[in-house]
Amino acid sequence: MYQHHQELAIATRGRGLYEFTAEVRAWLAGTQLGDGLLTLLVRHTSASLLIQENADLEVQRDLERFFARLVPDGDPLFRHVSEGKDDMPAHVRAALTQTHLSIPFVRGELALGTWQGIYLYEHRHDAQRRSIMLHAIGA
Amino acid sequence: MYQHHQELAIATRGRGLYEFTAEVRAWLAGTQLGDGLLTLLVRHTSASLLIQENADLEVQRDLERFFARLVPDGDPLFRHVSEGKDDMPAHVRAALTQTHLSIPFVRGELALGTWQGIYLYEHRHDAQRRSIMLHAIGA
Amino acid sequence: MYQHHQELAIATRGRGLYEFTAEVRAWLAGTQLGDGLLTLLVRHTSASLLIQENADLEVQRDLERFFARLVPDGDPLFRHVSEGKDDMPAHVRAALTQTHLSIPFVRGELALGTWQGIYLYEHRHDAQRRSIMLHAIGA
Repeated sequence: MYQHHQELAIATRGRGLYEFTAEVRAWLAGTQLGDGLLTLLVRHTSASLLIQENADLEVQRDLERFFARLVPDGDPLFRHVSEGKDDMPAHVRAALTQTHLSIPFVRGELALGTWQGIYLYEHRHDAQRRSIMLHAIGA
Repeated sequence: MYQHHQELAIATRGRGLYEFTAEVRAWLAGTQLGDGLLTLLVRHTSASLLIQENADLEVQRDLERFFARLVPDGDPLFRHVSEGKDDMPAHVRAALTQTHLSIPFVRGELALGTWQGIYLYEHRHDAQRRSIMLHAIGA
Repeated sequence: MYQHHQELAIATRGRGLYEFTAEVRAWLAGTQLGDGLLTLLVRHTSASLLIQENADLEVQRDLERFFARLVPDGDPLFRHVSEGKDDMPAHVRAALTQTHLSIPFVRGELALGTWQGIYLYEHRHDAQRRSIMLHAIGA
């Protein structure tokens, strides 16, 4: 059994979903592991991770429309406002989605379904540089 | 250290929670692993996974009532409507719940609490055949 | 490759977030593992786990304000009411957050970001004793 880890940086340019399945696949291929378990951790509390449909871009826009309505920027409910109107909503969105994902892989291929992609969900409007830790264990 | 994986298929007959703890336990017993980590991945974006109470069936019905109100079928907010009124709500429900679960096991037994069961949460109304990848690593 | 597991008990005194990052770090240090994967599972369906900001306490209070509005205690939608007005909301809150977390570690340090802490999210008002299973695999 072997393991590997790698930090991956993703530059975001505003709120929304950023697919990085290809980057994850490329890194996993480089480890030369056959079967095992891949784990991803986003190292921030105002961005999150999601596995979502990678076919129709409208799905991602609808998802964002839903979260924008569910957790409105500038909601008077929130008192943590010093870092901007979108900061506390970003923390809530992160709580409602995922900070980490674990995905088994078989013969070097992620066990994702045909329509599943791996996304960073950026919840802040300003440009950010997000850090994701990748970890693979297997043989 | 050893690892095992297996694809598990679950037939669903409409929206709702389908417990499959027994199937997971049976597969894990067959691996003959003692201590380790089990991971489950649902390979779809309109169904998800949940650990929930397995005692009172009303809990599952209330959970469904909550999600039906939070993410209504046919919500005019959504533009991705070509695959049916329940398709985009299914993606949102999947984002709000889990695509994967990881559960430690000790001496061959899942470390679940007394009242915890493993559920597939089907979000589409039509019958589906869902694929779940099981992975166990341990010794 | 080696693995370790440990049950951790946390006493809660009402609804809210309880940070236990220090306890997790202390246990991990005791395993003397360098690189690997840590998994935490909360063994209850009315409490959950979250990675959240550990800087401003107001973030945790705002998060609770949000969930209290989204899933109100005593909501007439719910029929599972025999265990109290906060019981079914607790199950829904658990479904919307996490029952487990997996966090890679590198050279004995959790790969968390600077502002990330590990929290037990207690959803019941009464005092509880919560059990969390810790599992680490690595070398």
